[in-house]
Amino acid sequence: MNKNFLIQVHNRVKPYIHKTPVLSSQLINDIAGCSIYFKCENFQKMGAFKMRGAANAILNLSEEERQKGVTTHSSGNFAQALSLAANKIGIEAFIVMPENAPEVKKKAVRGYKGDIIESGPLPKEREEMSIKVKEETGATFIHPSNDDDVIHGQGTAAIELLEEQPDLDYIFTPVGGGGLMAGTALAVKYFSDKCKVVGGEPKNADDGYRSLQSGKIEYNDSTNTIADGLRTNFGDRNFPIIKDEVERIILVEEDEIIEAMRLVWERMKIIIEPSSAVAFAALLKEKEQFKNKEVGIIISGGNVDVTNLPF
Amino acid sequence: MNKNFLIQVHNRVKPYIHKTPVLSSQLINDIAGCSIYFKCENFQKMGAFKMRGAANAILNLSEEERQKGVTTHSSGNFAQALSLAANKIGIEAFIVMPENAPEVKKKAVRGYKGDIIESGPLPKEREEMSIKVKEETGATFIHPSNDDDVIHGQGTAAIELLEEQPDLDYIFTPVGGGGLMAGTALAVKYFSDKCKVVGGEPKNADDGYRSLQSGKIEYNDSTNTIADGLRTNFGDRNFPIIKDEVERIILVEEDEIIEAMRLVWERMKIIIEPSSAVAFAALLKEKEQFKNKEVGIIISGGNVDVTNLPF
Repeated sequence: MNKNFLIQVHNRVKPYIHKTPVLSSQLINDIAGCSIYFKCENFQKMGAFKMRGAANAILNLSEEERQKGVTTHSSGNFAQALSLAANKIGIEAFIVMPENAPEVKKKAVRGYKGDIIESGPLPKEREEMSIKVKEETGATFIHPSNDDDVIHGQGTAAIELLEEQPDLDYIFTPVGGGGLMAGTALAVKYFSDKCKVVGGEPKNADDGYRSLQSGKIEYNDSTNTIADGLRTNFGDRNFPIIKDEVERIILVEEDEIIEAMRLVWERMKIIIEPSSAVAFAALLKEKEQFKNKEVGIIISGGNVDVTNLPF
Repeated sequence: MNKNFLIQVHNRVKPYIHKTPVLSSQLINDIAGCSIYFKCENFQKMGAFKMRGAANAILNLSEEERQKGVTTHSSGNFAQALSLAANKIGIEAFIVMPENAPEVKKKAVRGYKGDIIESGPLPKEREEMSIKVKEETGATFIHPSNDDDVIHGQGTAAIELLEEQPDLDYIFTPVGGGGLMAGTALAVKYFSDKCKVVGGEPKNADDGYRSLQSGKIEYNDSTNTIADGLRTNFGDRNFPIIKDEVERIILVEEDEIIEAMRLVWERMKIIIEPSSAVAFAALLKEKEQFKNKEVGIIISGGNVDVTNLPF
C-alpha cells in the first residue's frame, strides 16, 4: 500500500462516480466554532459513497469472474451501489435481501437492475442464502465493508476532499461497518502530513467505540438507533487499519443526531441521511476541542424517506 | 438599459451574494426528456434569490438615504433579504409585518438584524403602517418585486446561469410578484441570442397567466396555493418587461407542484421550497414541447418548514 496505489484506485473508479462538491456554510461554522468542509456524498450516484467501493471491487475482478456476476447481502445503500456499479460495468448483481425488507428498498435495487433474491429475515438465513447464490451462480461475494477493494474505493472520497482542502486538521466520518472509516484513514495517511481521522458513532450502537477501547472487534447486543446505516460492526480487514490510524471515536445520543441532521437541512438546504448527521453531531458535541480547526466531514449519503422524518 | 448596465449591477452585488452552483441530474433529465440546469438560489445567502435584488437596491441609495435606512412590507423571503443586505451594508432595515405572521418568520428577520414593526393583518393596515414608518424614520421604501433596482438585481442569477450554460434554449422561473421573471427576461435579452423565458405559475394564483392574456395587470380573488411566495401580482415596473419579453406562462395544479418538489428532494438531495418547484412542474407538464432542449430553471429558494411538509 502506498500513495500511488490509491491514486490508481481513484483513477479506476473515476469514470463511474461523481466528483462530489465540497460545501461550506458560514452559519454552520459560526455554530461549530471551526471551519467545516462537507464532502457531499449525498450527491454521489445512487445517493451515497458506497458507489465508490462497489465500483472498485467490480473493476478489480478478472474477466472470468465478471462473467459470473457479483453478489452481496444488504438491504441498504450497498445493495443499490453494487446493483448500479454492476449495471454500469455490464455484469449481473445478485442481491440477497430479507423478505421483510421495505418495498422502497427493493424498488431502489430493482431500479438499478439488481436481481433480488429473498431470504428469511434472520442473519443466519441471509448468510445461508448468500452461500447458496454463490454456489449456484458462481458470482463473487462482495462484502459491503469488510473487503479490501471496497475499503480502498471508499477512501477516494477523502482523497478528493484533501485535494480541495489540503490543510485539513481533521476528517470526521460516521462509524458503521468500518469501510468508509478505514478507507478514509488510508487516504489521510498517504495524502496528508497532519490530518487525523475522527469517528462519530451512535451511543446506541457503540461497537466501534468499544472496539477501539478493547483492541478487538466488539459487537452490539442491540442497535436501537435512527442511523440505520451504522448498526453493523467492524471486520478483520478494516479493523486493523482503524486501530492503527484513527484518532478517536465520539459517541452521540439520538437527539443529537436528529438535531445535527435538522441543522444541515435547514441551514445548508441539502438532504442528508441520519447516518451522515452522526459525524457532524460528534463534532458539535466536542466542539471546544476542535475550535478554530479546519475540519472535513464526509456526508455519507442522502437516502432518506422524506415522508417519514424524525422532525 | 444595455448589457453593460447589467454587468455593472452584477459587479455591484457580487461582494454581497454567493455565486450559487448550477446542478444537473441524469435521472431528472431522463424523466423530463431534456437537459436541465438548476440554478440553485436555495443555496443563496438567507436561502433565496431575493438577496440579489435587496442588495442592489440598497447599494444604489445615496449616502444620505442610507443613513435613514430602508423599509418594506413583507413576511416572506424579501423581509429576510432586506434585513440581511442592510445589515451587511451597515444600515437599518424597518420591516413591516402583520402581527399574526408566523413566529418562525419573525425570528428569521430578527436573526438578520431587521427591526420588525407590527401592523394589523389587512393589506390596508400594512400599507398604512409602511407609510407611517417612512414618515417617521425617513427610510426609503423598497418594494419586494416592483422596483427597478430589485428587478435588475434578481436578473443576476440568470446572468450567472448563462455564463455557465450559454447555449440554453429556455430559462424557467416561478411567477410571483414579477421581480425574478422580469429580471431574468432582461438578462436573457442582453446575454443570449436565442434563449426564451417561460414562467411556471400555480393555477390557484393565476394572475400572471391572465395578465399575459389580457395585456394588463390582473389580480387574484383567492390564492389557495402551497407556493406561498407566488401569491402576489405583477406591478407597473415589471409587467411591461414581462409582457414584451416572456414567451409564455404555464399553469400547474397543486399536486403537480408537490410531486415536482418531492422529485427534486429525492433525486437531487436538495431542499427547495414549493414556489421553486412550480417552475420545474411547469416544464414536466409540457415536457413534449421541450424535448431534447437545453433548459435552465431558477430554483428560487429553499426556505421551508421541514417539520411541516406536504408529503
